[in-house]
Amino acid sequence: MKRLVGIDLGGTSIRAALADGPTAPGARVTRRTPAADGPEAVIAACAAAATEVAGGAPDGIAIGIPGPVDPVAGIVFAAPHLPGWEDLPAREMLSRAAGCPVAIHNDANLAGYAEWVAGMGKDTRTFVFVIVGTGIGGAMIIDGELYVGTVGTAVELGHVPSSLDGPRCGQGHVGCLEGIASGTGIASQAAAALDAGEVSQLRGVHPLNASVIADAARGGDALARRVYAEAGRALGRAFGGVINLLGPEALAIGGGVGSHADLLHGPLRDAMAEIAFAAPLRRCRFGPAELGSDAGLVGAVAWAVRSFSEG
Amino acid sequence: MKRLVGIDLGGTSIRAALADGPTAPGARVTRRTPAADGPEAVIAACAAAATEVAGGAPDGIAIGIPGPVDPVAGIVFAAPHLPGWEDLPAREMLSRAAGCPVAIHNDANLAGYAEWVAGMGKDTRTFVFVIVGTGIGGAMIIDGELYVGTVGTAVELGHVPSSLDGPRCGQGHVGCLEGIASGTGIASQAAAALDAGEVSQLRGVHPLNASVIADAARGGDALARRVYAEAGRALGRAFGGVINLLGPEALAIGGGVGSHADLLHGPLRDAMAEIAFAAPLRRCRFGPAELGSDAGLVGAVAWAVRSFSEG
Repeated sequence: MKRLVGIDLGGTSIRAALADGPTAPGARVTRRTPAADGPEAVIAACAAAATEVAGGAPDGIAIGIPGPVDPVAGIVFAAPHLPGWEDLPAREMLSRAAGCPVAIHNDANLAGYAEWVAGMGKDTRTFVFVIVGTGIGGAMIIDGELYVGTVGTAVELGHVPSSLDGPRCGQGHVGCLEGIASGTGIASQAAAALDAGEVSQLRGVHPLNASVIADAARGGDALARRVYAEAGRALGRAFGGVINLLGPEALAIGGGVGSHADLLHGPLRDAMAEIAFAAPLRRCRFGPAELGSDAGLVGAVAWAVRSFSEG
Repeated sequence: MKRLVGIDLGGTSIRAALADGPTAPGARVTRRTPAADGPEAVIAACAAAATEVAGGAPDGIAIGIPGPVDPVAGIVFAAPHLPGWEDLPAREMLSRAAGCPVAIHNDANLAGYAEWVAGMGKDTRTFVFVIVGTGIGGAMIIDGELYVGTVGTAVELGHVPSSLDGPRCGQGHVGCLEGIASGTGIASQAAAALDAGEVSQLRGVHPLNASVIADAARGGDALARRVYAEAGRALGRAFGGVINLLGPEALAIGGGVGSHADLLHGPLRDAMAEIAFAAPLRRCRFGPAELGSDAGLVGAVAWAVRSFSEG
């Protein structure tokens, strides 16, 4: 059997696993990402983790990258948490460092692929996966293929219009979904309300992030509840638009913020119905992603097996 | 050679053409749609037009329907301009009336298919077509296949979020693109500004529609210019979202309102760049549709040939 490795590359850690079956990560290692040392050092650390987990030179690696990627050209356009990763030929670099063929993909795409092969989207023909964390990303699988568009960057679900004059997202776009509904967006909205003098138990809390705001909302804080309800409404409207545009069989929500179902899902479901046509809404199963923070690694392993198990 | 017929069914007229080559309409007839007489009468008129144009019983018909359709089940969910068309088994009805196999599709889907086989989207692998008229519709062709989603209703580009608290669209959705950027939306926005007392040469004009507002804008009327600029911005933001979501190779805009390029395309292009990522934006060719009001008929003919020329 071939020694195929999946790698989930993050801004703080590198997680590698040897494939043990078509979607099952076997032996694993986790290493610190030497992000500050630049791309060459990060690539070398990935190669070392893959070699270690494979007990020698691997026969193939698939790696998920935290940023927009052209999987056909093997280029990383940018990776916000990895200094120096700009228009980087990461596939060729890792292939040389590890001595084996490599496939690269955006990390949200591989997480979505994992949910399709082994999670919430199993056995669907059209599946949309949305990950709501610090930012918002997504993936779409049509008839078993990851849909990536012309340059590999498709299904950037955080960067669809939400409001004509809303807050800016991390990319500086006015009124993008990400500016309201991501973890960063939720924290900015709460900070703006506090700055405007609104009463809240969040006053003076540092750092003000989506997680402490969620705790405050569960404790009954009105500002925190409203900010989550607004995020849920914006997500639901965007998902309603996705249902009208794409009519998927299933739509899964994951990510750290996305997992606060108690705060988000009520307004989210109401807003979906506000926008979506009845027929495709009825046929779209909506719910939480199933693989949690393992999705990226499972997806990388599954992609390695898919890409390199033949021959 | 088989006698294959394409029909473009509208609320006021039925246009039928015999296929003369894979995408070329040959002999044509146009008939009044007896919409008020109900579905059976309309279906009979379509069958008669097809028989006339084919000079006898046709060997196959493809028909474009002005409303959401399930092309697999052969059902029309609704057709706003055709009274009584609700959950109608139109494919079976027309097949019985005309004595031949029938394929049905949404009219915007067939117009988009026409632009892909013979118009602006020729030779692309991923193509999005948007038609902006009284309402807003769309189509997407991926690797030569019309993408229709679970129930055939996908690519309803008029029904994606534009604004959190914007005007309602024809379906009653708050802040949908269609409520701002369709012909109906443009007229409503102008009417609202007039009601609010704004000075304009449009005061007292009846009927107030997208066409007279376009004339006023070209004459320098500030209200009319602003309403078109806002429609262009909303369209451009939606298209930017489509580029981030789907990364198409080309995006064509058609329809009566969409053809006012002088009023719309400036703000539209600026707004696309406001939202879209640079890499997929660079790779997406954007421009006017090429087949004009013939697109629906060309698409129906091409779909008839595709569906029934074998065997």
